[in-house]
Order: sequence, then structure tokens, then C-alpha cells
Amino acid sequence: MITHSSYVVEPWRLRETELSLDVLAQSESVFALSNGHVGWRGNLDEGEPHGLPGAYLNGVHETRPLPYAEAGYGYPESGQTMINVTDGKVIRLLVDDHPCDLRYGELTAHERVLDFRTGVLHRTAEWTTPGGRAVRITSSRLVSLTQRAVAAVVYEVTPLDGPAAVAVQSELVANEQLPDTGGDPRVAAAIGSPLRPEEDFAQDTRLRLVHRTERSGQRVGAAADHLIEGPEGTLWSSQSEPDVSRLTVTATLEPGQRLRLVKFVAYGWSAERSLPAVHDQVDGAVAAARSTGWEGLVAEQREYLDRFWACADVEVGGDAQIQQAVRFALFHVLQAAARGEERAIPAKGLTGTGYDGHSFWDIESFVLPVLTSTAPQTVASVLRWRHATLPAARQRARQLGLAGAAFPWRTITGAECSAYWPAGTAAFHVNADIANAVIRYVTATGDMEFARGPGLELLVETARLWRSLGHHDTEGVFHLDGVTGPDEYSAVTHDNLYTNLMARRNLVAAAEAAVRYPERAAELGVDDEESAAWRDAAARIAVPYNAALGVHEQSEGFTRLQHWDFDATSPDQYPLLLHFPYFDLYRKQVVKQADLVLAMLTCPDAFTAEEKARNFAYYEPLTVRDSSLSACCQAVLAAETGHLRLAYAYLGEAALMDLENLEHNTRDGLHMASLAGTWIALVIGLGGMRHHDRPDGGPGALGDGADPTAAGARLGFAPRLPEPLSRLAFTVLVRGRRLRVDIRSSTVRYTLAEGGPLRLLHYGEPVTVTPSEPVELPVPPPAEVAEPEQPTGRRPADRLGRLAAAGSDADG
Amino acid sequence: MITHSSYVVEPWRLRETELSLDVLAQSESVFALSNGHVGWRGNLDEGEPHGLPGAYLNGVHETRPLPYAEAGYGYPESGQTMINVTDGKVIRLLVDDHPCDLRYGELTAHERVLDFRTGVLHRTAEWTTPGGRAVRITSSRLVSLTQRAVAAVVYEVTPLDGPAAVAVQSELVANEQLPDTGGDPRVAAAIGSPLRPEEDFAQDTRLRLVHRTERSGQRVGAAADHLIEGPEGTLWSSQSEPDVSRLTVTATLEPGQRLRLVKFVAYGWSAERSLPAVHDQVDGAVAAARSTGWEGLVAEQREYLDRFWACADVEVGGDAQIQQAVRFALFHVLQAAARGEERAIPAKGLTGTGYDGHSFWDIESFVLPVLTSTAPQTVASVLRWRHATLPAARQRARQLGLAGAAFPWRTITGAECSAYWPAGTAAFHVNADIANAVIRYVTATGDMEFARGPGLELLVETARLWRSLGHHDTEGVFHLDGVTGPDEYSAVTHDNLYTNLMARRNLVAAAEAAVRYPERAAELGVDDEESAAWRDAAARIAVPYNAALGVHEQSEGFTRLQHWDFDATSPDQYPLLLHFPYFDLYRKQVVKQADLVLAMLTCPDAFTAEEKARNFAYYEPLTVRDSSLSACCQAVLAAETGHLRLAYAYLGEAALMDLENLEHNTRDGLHMASLAGTWIALVIGLGGMRHHDRPDGGPGALGDGADPTAAGARLGFAPRLPEPLSRLAFTVLVRGRRLRVDIRSSTVRYTLAEGGPLRLLHYGEPVTVTPSEPVELPVPPPAEVAEPEQPTGRRPADRLGRLAAAGSDADG
Repeated sequence: MITHSSYVVEPWRLRETELSLDVLAQSESVFALSNGHVGWRGNLDEGEPHGLPGAYLNGVHETRPLPYAEAGYGYPESGQTMINVTDGKVIRLLVDDHPCDLRYGELTAHERVLDFRTGVLHRTAEWTTPGGRAVRITSSRLVSLTQRAVAAVVYEVTPLDGPAAVAVQSELVANEQLPDTGGDPRVAAAIGSPLRPEEDFAQDTRLRLVHRTERSGQRVGAAADHLIEGPEGTLWSSQSEPDVSRLTVTATLEPGQRLRLVKFVAYGWSAERSLPAVHDQVDGAVAAARSTGWEGLVAEQREYLDRFWACADVEVGGDAQIQQAVRFALFHVLQAAARGEERAIPAKGLTGTGYDGHSFWDIESFVLPVLTSTAPQTVASVLRWRHATLPAARQRARQLGLAGAAFPWRTITGAECSAYWPAGTAAFHVNADIANAVIRYVTATGDMEFARGPGLELLVETARLWRSLGHHDTEGVFHLDGVTGPDEYSAVTHDNLYTNLMARRNLVAAAEAAVRYPERAAELGVDDEESAAWRDAAARIAVPYNAALGVHEQSEGFTRLQHWDFDATSPDQYPLLLHFPYFDLYRKQVVKQADLVLAMLTCPDAFTAEEKARNFAYYEPLTVRDSSLSACCQAVLAAETGHLRLAYAYLGEAALMDLENLEHNTRDGLHMASLAGTWIALVIGLGGMRHHDRPDGGPGALGDGADPTAAGARLGFAPRLPEPLSRLAFTVLVRGRRLRVDIRSSTVRYTLAEGGPLRLLHYGEPVTVTPSEPVELPVPPPAEVAEPEQPTGRRPADRLGRLAAAGSDADG
Repeated sequence: MITHSSYVVEPWRLRETELSLDVLAQSESVFALSNGHVGWRGNLDEGEPHGLPGAYLNGVHETRPLPYAEAGYGYPESGQTMINVTDGKVIRLLVDDHPCDLRYGELTAHERVLDFRTGVLHRTAEWTTPGGRAVRITSSRLVSLTQRAVAAVVYEVTPLDGPAAVAVQSELVANEQLPDTGGDPRVAAAIGSPLRPEEDFAQDTRLRLVHRTERSGQRVGAAADHLIEGPEGTLWSSQSEPDVSRLTVTATLEPGQRLRLVKFVAYGWSAERSLPAVHDQVDGAVAAARSTGWEGLVAEQREYLDRFWACADVEVGGDAQIQQAVRFALFHVLQAAARGEERAIPAKGLTGTGYDGHSFWDIESFVLPVLTSTAPQTVASVLRWRHATLPAARQRARQLGLAGAAFPWRTITGAECSAYWPAGTAAFHVNADIANAVIRYVTATGDMEFARGPGLELLVETARLWRSLGHHDTEGVFHLDGVTGPDEYSAVTHDNLYTNLMARRNLVAAAEAAVRYPERAAELGVDDEESAAWRDAAARIAVPYNAALGVHEQSEGFTRLQHWDFDATSPDQYPLLLHFPYFDLYRKQVVKQADLVLAMLTCPDAFTAEEKARNFAYYEPLTVRDSSLSACCQAVLAAETGHLRLAYAYLGEAALMDLENLEHNTRDGLHMASLAGTWIALVIGLGGMRHHDRPDGGPGALGDGADPTAAGARLGFAPRLPEPLSRLAFTVLVRGRRLRVDIRSSTVRYTLAEGGPLRLLHYGEPVTVTPSEPVELPVPPPAEVAEPEQPTGRRPADRLGRLAAAGSDADG
């Protein structure tokens, strides 16, 4: 059984050398193109065969009622599902009346290449029709990073062994027939044919369709224009119907003669604006794209990506597959975020409909750390989206009897869409994750306009939530009861340690921000009593610890619970949630994903080195990694606690999640958090990068008074490479500076590629790097540490062993 | 606004003296007739107006898919809903072409009387048609306690002021149109028109309909025959259609002349048997009823009830309303159970469709204690039903990864129908409640055939469940984690004290039963190691206690939680679950219903008197009584801890739950548990009756070796009457003995009405009562104790104050 496509290992490209129909959907996800606003899955130009056809617009969704057999107060009534919008990438081909469908005839060659530096997907195919005529098809496709509404395709066909009558049909298609989801008929009803036609148009080479969703009332427009190059006698015509607008080009080609079509597509949508407004918008965008031209779009794309890679590239020596994977990851993370512009980043970006296209805490906690260091402008955009959803979050908090804002567990618009509250609404940590993203962004960029505006309001409203959610006990300890932490195999626990530490930071940061911006804070109603209450709650927050075992507790009483019987659990019973009831998972010591381990990553200064080592050793044998969010966190703590071989194994798992389809669901879209996790495992894990807290648990440097060269700035590194990596080099943007960190096995070199002097910590020791003077320092040799066990059968694939077995292959 | 009907206070009858259309549905519930197999709501004979038409057969239901917006492993896929079967009570009347509908014309008199000694519902009406003709209508109705399939009606009409052309249509009606449920369209689909016609028949005075439910595949037959008495010229004919079979009788009556119809109705149903078999069954039953005749049925009914009241009657001096209420309660509890014959008792009996007609733990924990002392043959029947569902319970345990049997939280057939697992499946205490019902029944009756057969198997399979559900911690303490206790405002807690104490008794009883019946136990696979493991788990089970406060904890850590802000909760925010999310209720100290207090009732010997007093004082201010299961338990502990006035107030609440519609949902059916609670509050509360445990927590007397006159027999009383009760007398059946306990304010008299000598405890002191010698003992005066507070606005209505205000009324 083929479970995943295999791609050629190259440093800057993802190359597929044959077409495997069994795993078509996975390749559609990995070859997806997006700019964060428009997303096109890597479907074949001809539309079929397909795994899952997909064209998405960030924010376009349909609503559907959420059914409950037993309803409860505060349960969300309405769900949201990202829908497949008008598909502009379809270019059907007929050769001598044979429709080009690669399931028929003979496919003698098929190659697809996604180039991370050009941002263009190239395809070459050689196909012989069932009638025996061989043709070469080439196409190139991009979703523009510079022209937000625009995508474009170049499609060429050439007969190889004799003349051919060729017809090319370039289409806009709405309400594409989707594969059977096999599930709930209500879901199918909502997403199967979600678009009601409002306008269809075709004239000369121009096409347009405007539709509207029924319940969410969003108007979606798509337009296309074309350039046609063909031999004399090439003809074209266009026609439209409510759900399809089509340009048909016909030509009779001699061998070697080429028919070439350039297709410019533009999208627009609005829940507010009129049909003529949307209509004009997409026509205008397509005209602008046509005037830029294909070559112009390609040049802009390259220029945009050159700028990105200059700030973001990670170089890995000694493991070519990881080298490729981290660039693949960064490329897709950028694609998900680049032009979102105050919209959410879905957990799968715009690469598929997994998780209904919802955004979760994954974004703030996994994706934004990467972007903060590499493309910080996108971070401000995501956080401004969160800020724009504050009215819904405030309303949700009121509904739950709480103050401040309660951000949703999963959403497209900002309204809570989680229908199972113990693993949804109760996971309040999403609020601290958002606050932490604000702190991280402001600390790294010094964007004080943001800090004073949306940043302050986000910190204040989330701090208010924590203060009202928690309470002091008779001894004054502040507890957050009945919440769910990151680990989804525990729920509705008291004093989840991750949540408590993150809430503490949130409370302290809000109090500090209120001091820094007193007028704005007063406008938000913050007074000294309120910020004192935040500080006091933070100072006395419960930190569950089992003194007998010498380990922190994931939540109050966790270490007292029964251990999961891993020996009695067979390999085919993972993920556990599909084979065991929640009731059983919740009441035992079994961890789906890093939770306490994540706390040690995000709040590194709340634990001593010895505590980290003991905690990691305790939780590692309980953690099954049934979530794609786990491996990268475990990589970081494995590295910090000296388990470099294990860190390397987890790095491999995070990096290959989608390229090797490790969770068997890459078909539904890419795991953005795990892609980001590749960078996290490398930079935060092996690079040992941390933004250290102050001793009181407050964030390192939030305010505009903080001088990045002063002692208050607490960016630190503690790099260490596992065998066989010979090198790891990455760039971090911090306070207008571009710091290059170049790690070899026994030294590290810090270079300022841009910006003024920077003080940082190297293994805890302060060092100042100046533009003129790179600093080279030694990397201490790793100590010998016994490696912890994982649950039976859940040990990550040993990457070192795999590389050794693969020999020189791995080094490409 | 009228919120409930008011009934005349009489000792042996419930009398309604006028018809109030606003509260029709409540009266339909209180006037419902049933024998536990067939149930007829107290609908008007003419069918309309109605609140909710209802004819029910115990076990007849339709299934429906349970929807989940986010499904999970082990969630039940199918729900069950009790359906309204063929209605045999409808007798429509036309007077001079005016249909008799009491909403039109003028109703000059209307009285209904339910007599608890005869078991017959009488009705008298005087109605003037819109055309001005006055008629008297009388009817009498019974559901036979002796002929299980049979119900009967006598209907008479007499013109009062001039001749009238009268037509009487006696019908069997299937798929009656129900009032809009306003809810889920899927539910409406399942229950709106649930019967598919299979046969309809009408000939002479005989009617028959046979239908079948679509998904559950149950065949339901109903037949009727009639006796007609009228003046010369009285004619009749009959006809049938798929959903109605009808006898029409016409006569022209002079004033004072009477048309009289006697209608015999019989029901049968089966999921197995053929159409002819069911057809013959109902025809046979109706023929038998006709041969008994109306007077014969009435005589049998009286005889049956005389026997019941001889064993069950409770006499209350000084409060006529409570006197009536306890007989009303006992009558309905008997009706729910009398002829169930190995079917469940639904939470609402067969009086309405509330809770979908499901059976819950209420039955074993509230209804069966009453029946064990008053009509024990019905208890064996219910427990045999549970035993018959063991295959489903074993399968459910397997699905949950547990050993033994996991009985459902709510069900009709034995399959789990709870769609919200934290308040359903996790409420494992239902298993101990069933085991405790077995222990109680065997202890009280000495039915050793039952003990050795179904009893042993129920104890063993539930003990296995507990052993596999729990685990020992590093210090050997046995914990039951992640379970929900009786209080539905907490869920998925560790070591719920009620659950733990009840599981302890279950484990000990199973081990003892295995010793007593070694061969049967061996057949069930029990060996010494297994029963040792049960004993050990029981001996070391966790009993959460907060030493600083000196109170037991409802569950581990409960007393550390934040207190609910009762002062900020307005009266219209009760029941809390309709106004606050579960997440908020679960994480705070707020108690829906007696939980720890119930533990003190069911396991009285697990607490010292001081602990009971402190615990009651602690939990009383936290308990909001948003469940009808609470007041009676609080009455018992209030009485035991010396708060007699409070006990009396809670007794009043339990007793008037349905008569005064205190929870505003009596329309959906009567609260069987609260009706039973009237007896519990009186007998266990004011009578202080307890079956005491042995010091090791084991049940008092389970085996056949136990001599009820020996020290091992631990039936005790500690009676004490609140002002203004002058007397409380009740009968308890125990081991073939009929013990009468007659309490006055300062003395109690124990009399053996039947059976050999009995040893009992009076205030802890052993006393032996012999048939010839009643024993009269003093009742100690109550100590002065400060009364605990209830949550703001949740104090029960002070019954003493109410009585004082009502003056002589109350003493009827």
C-alpha cells in the first residue's frame, strides 16, 4: 500500500517525478499555492482525476446548524465551514476528441516541481491519447504574493508524433462536485453546493462569475482573462452558464507546434458590498494582472521571495532531507500568512478543508513564533484580526459569566464553533496564547504603535478573563479550575500548569502595559486596583508540584492518576481517541501532546534545569504524540535536556509530517503548526533560542523604553547539534536587526547582517554583537544523559539510524 | 397566572372541582391511570381539548439517530423515545350535531375524582351546547391491576332540559396528532406519527387496530368491545380505517333518559410475534375483560388495592395535605410498578413522555426502597429486568474498556441512550445503585432464589466493573477517578464519595454472595483471587475528607473550589443549568441535588453523628435543589441531624412536587422519584428507618442464614415528629413480617401485624417485637440545634408557617 508520495530531495525544490493516483490528494496539498488570501490546491490543470478539488478564499465560509442530542446552555448553535469557491485553475484539454484524463490513454512522463525561490509550480506531462497521439503538456501556475487577488496559469500543449486537433477549455467553475465525505448529510448539504449564482458572463477572452452563499451571505466574484498564442487557424469563443464560464480555444497543431494559453484569474468577496462593486473589483484586478503580464508576475514573485528568504532561510548541513523540509515548511507558512491581511490563518492554511478551515491556538503558538522572527509584518496582521474579533470574544465571555474576552477555540469569523465544550471552550489557554503572541511580537519588533493600540487592548481583555476565571483559596493561592490545557487527553482539570504559567505572564504583561500606556489603559477602564489584582493573582498562581516524585504536575493531582496501560494497547489503537472513550483517557496518566513540556518551552524560566530534566523524563513515557503539535515541542525539550539524538528524531517527525504523510491526513491539507514546528525544532530546539522572562515571570522586554543592547533584553541561544548535522544557520529578525546565527559542531558565530548592536545571551552569558564584529563562541560538548523511554511502540523513528541506513542519499 | 390546578384535600381521593384549560396537562398527569404495563393519561374522554394525549405501553418506543456535531468513540448512535400508542380511551360525543368540546358552549359543572382505594377515575360534567341543550356526562375509567392488558371505561350521557339527538363515537385512534414540541425536527419525525398500519377491523361492537413501529419494529395491537344500553331506537354501527376504528351509537334521548356505553380495551405488543398472534392476543384479552364485566373489573381492582394498602398505607395526623399527598404518591408508585413484569419503570412511569420515557437510577434509588417495604414482588420484577439487560451492559463495559457490566444512565431497552457522557456514562454510580437495590431487596425479603440467581450475577458483574474502573495508588488507596456522582452540577470528578461508599458496599456484598453461593459463583468465573481483590479494594477505598474544615468532600478537592456566588444569582436564574454553562457549574461549589447528603442516607454507618451534622451544615448552603430528587434526601438528613422544622419543609416540597407543579413540568408526567420521596421523607426521614451496615461497611443481612431475630439483623428506627404532626404510622414488610410503626409525639408503638418475632433497633437499642406483644417506647425530645442556611432564595417553603397561616384548613 502506498501511503505517501515520494519526492526527490533537493535543497530548494519539491519535485515529484511520477503521478500516483493513490495519493493524489496528498500531492494536491503539498503542491498547493496560496498567498493567504487566495488558495489553490495542487489539482491537475484538467480538473480530473482529483483527490479533492479546492479553491479557497480566506474567510469565505458557509454556516450550518450544530446539532446536539442533549443541548446545553452556551453551546454554539452555528458552525462554520470553509467552502470550495469558484475554481479558476481548470483548463480542460481535448486531443482529437479525447478528453485529457490521465486515467486513460498512456502517461509516459509526469513531473511537477514546486520551486520555493520562485513560488511557481511547474508541470510537464507526456501523454498518449487512447487513440495513440502523443502530446506534451506543460503548465506553470502561481498565486501572486504581490497582487493579492490574482492567480495565473500558463498552459501549453504540443503534439509529439503527428498532427493533432486540440481544444483547450479554460474555465471558471462554481459548485464543483466534491468527493463523498461519507459523513453527516447536513455537512454535505452545507458544503456540497454552497454557491447561489448571481451573475455569469463570458465575452471574447474574458470570463466572470459572481455567486453568493446562502446562509452566510457572502458574495464571491471570480474573473479571468486570457492571452492566446497558437498557429494560424487558432480560434476561440466563450460562453457562460450560472455555474461555469468558459473560453474554448481550438487549433490543429503539427508536431512541435504549440498552443499556449496564459490565464489571469482574480478573486474578490464581500459580505457587504454590492454585486456591481464585487464585479468591478475582480474585473479591475484581472486587468491589472494582465497588464503586469505573466513574466511580470513571475518577476514580482521572485523578488518578494528573495526578500523573504534573506530574512528567513535556514541552512542545514548534513541532512539534505531536513534542509528541504525546512524550506518547504517556511514556504508554506509564508504562503498561509503573506497576504491574509486581518484574516485568520486556518490550521491547514488554504491548502485543504481539514478542520473545516478553522483557526485554532496553533496559529499563535506555533506559526506566529516562526513568523515573528522571519516575517513579522504578517504577525501584526493576524493579531489585528484577533483584535477585530474582540466584540465576539467579549460577548462570549459574558455568556460564560466571565469578564474581559473569551476567544474561541475554533473559528473562521471569531464566533466559537466548538461543539464539544470540554475540549473547546474549556481550553481557555487560547487566550493566553494570543496574549503571548502579542508579547512576543512587541518584544521582537518594538512595534509600539501596535503595543499601545490593539496590543494593549488584547492584553487587558485577556487579563480580565483570567482574573474572573480564577479565585484565591483560603491560603491566598490563585487557582484556575475546570480548564483544559493543551493535552486533549485530559480535560476540565484544575490548575493546568501550562495554562497557569501562561495566564501569569498574561496578567503581568497587562499590568505592565497599563503602566506604560496609562491614558489608553484608563480609556479601557483599567485602574490601579484592577492592575494590582492582576499582579497579585499572577504572584500567587498555583504551580502544581509533586514533591515526592520531584516533578511538576500537568494539572492538580495528575501524577496520582492511574497510568495508561500502554503494553495492552496495540499499535492499531492509535490515535487513542478513535479507540477509547474520552472518559477513560481523561482519568488516566496519558498525554496526547506536549503540555507540561510545552510549558517548559514557552516559560523556560519557570523551571530549573534539574526540574526540566526530571519533568521531561517523567512525561516522555506518558506522551503518545497523537497530535501533530507534539513532536516539535518534544524536540525542543529533548535538546535542552541533552537528548540530542531524541531531539533529532522528533525534528525528523515534525519535518516530514506532510512530506511523508505521517498522520495519514495530509490529503485534507497541510499541518501548518507542524510545518512551523520544523523551524521550532531547529531554531528553538537545536539553536536553543529563548526570549527569557524576568525573574518575576514578566516578559523580558515589552516597552518602548527597553534598549535591545541593555541587560533587560533577554534573547538567548544555547545551540547544540546532534550527529550527523554539520551545520545549522538561521536568521532572526529582532528590533530592526537581522541576526545570523551559524552553528557548527563546536562553535557558533553570531553576525549582524542589518541593524545596530545587539546584546544577547550565549549559554546564559551576555555577549554584545555589533555590525562590524561577528562573535564566534564555543559550543560546549553535550553531557552524557540516559534517554527517557516513550510509550510502547510510540518511540519516534530514529533519524540518525535512518540516515546511516540511507547512506549518502541523505546528504543529497 | 395559574401555574397549577388545585385539588380538594381529602384523605383518600384527589378531587378536581373545575376544569382549567390553562393547566389541563398537569391534571392529565395526576389523573393518569396505569398498571405498569398500560398507561392512560387523564385526558378528557372526548379527546379534546387536551394538553398532551397519551396512551403508553411499557417498552414500546421508537429509535432515532442521536446527532453529534463532534462525535466521539463510544457515543451511543441511537436514542429511544417512548411513543403514544393507539388511544383506546377516546369517546367522542355529539349533541344535536354539536361536537362536545368543552371550549365551546357552557360548562356549568365539571368534577373529576381519583379514588386511591378503588383505583377508578370518575368524572361528572354538565354542559350546555352552543345550541342551548344541557346534558350531563359521567364517566368512570380504570386500567386494570388484575388483568394486565385491560382498561375499561363507562360513559353515560343524559339530557337535562329537553330531548337531544345524541351520537357517541367510541374509537381506537393511532398516530394522534400531538402538540408541537417546538424542538428538533428529527424528534418530531420519530414521535409524531410513529405507527405504520398493519390491520384495521370493525365489526358490530368490536374494534381492532394493529400497527408496527418503523425502526424499532414493534407490533402494537389494540382491541375494544362494547356494551350499549339506551332507549328503544338506539342504533350502532362500526367502521375502520388504517388509523382509526370506530363504533358509532346514536339515540334520541328524552330528559333523564340515559345512553350508557361500557368499553373494554385490551393491548398487546411484541417485537417478535406475528400479526395473527398479536391480533389473537388482544381479541382474547378483550373477551376475557368483557366476560369479567365492568363491575367485576371494579371489584378486582378494589380487592387488589385493599391488599396493597394493608401493607403500604401511611397515616399522617395533623397535616391533611401531606396525608393526601403520601397516598397519592403511593398510589402512583404502585401504578408504575404493579404489572411491569420485567420491564423498566420509566422516571415518569406511564404518565407522560418526559425524559423520553427513559428509566434512570431514580428507580433503584428512590422508587424501589418504597416498594421493597410495601410491595416487594414488584421489586424483583424490576431487578429481573435489569438482569435481562446484562448482555447490553456487558457489551457497554467492553466498549468502555471495562470488565463486568456497565448499566446505562438512561434507557428503555437496556442500551445506553445518554448523548452527553459527562452526565451520563460517567455516572457509574447507577451500577452500585442497582447492586444496592439487590442487597436491599434480599435483605428485606430473604428471597434466596433471587439472591442465588439474578441477584448474585448482578452483584458479581457490577463488582467487576468497580474493580476494573478503579486503581490503587502508591500508598494502596483505591480510587475511582473520572466519575460523576448524583450531583449533576459536578462531573467527571475523582473519588466521588457517594460513588465510593456505594461501590464499597457493592464489592463487599459481591464477595459475600460468592462465599454463600460458591457453585453459582464458580459458574460465573469468580475465584478466591477475584473476591479477595474486591474485598481489598473495598477496604482501601478513598473517602475524601477535609480535615481543616472537618467535613467530608463530595469528591476529591471539592471543598477547595470557589463558592458559587449565590447573592449574584437572581431567582429567575434557577434552574442554574438553563442559565449558566456546565463549565462554570462544574468548577464551583454548587450542588444541584443531594450527593454527599444522599451518601449519608444510603450509607448511614459510614459517618458519625457529629460528621453527619457538620456535613449537613456544610452542604446545605451549597445545595440549590434544581432536581426533584433532592428535597426528600435533605428531609431525611435534616431529621437525623435534629432540624425537624426543616425536615418538615423538605417533606412538603417532595410531597407537593406534582400536586402543586413545583418544577413546572408535571405536564410531561409525574416525578416518580419525588412521589417515592414523600414516603422516604416520612418513613426514612421522620420515622428514622435504616438498614444498618456491619462495621466493615458490608450490608446488614444478605444471606439466607441470617435470622431476623438475631443481632445480625439491623433494621432500626429513630422516629421524631416535627410540629404540628400528631401522628405518623406506617407499615414495613420485612422477611415475611408486617411491622406497623405508630409514632406519636413522645412515643412509638411497634406492632407485628403478621409473621414471627422481629428484632429491631430503637434509637440504636435492640428490641424484639413479638406478634402477641406490641412494644411501646419513648421518643426522646429533640435537641436544640441551629438551623443551617440555604443558598439565597432557595430556602424551602416553611411548611409549619404555611399550616399556621392556613389554619384549620390544613387539618381538613
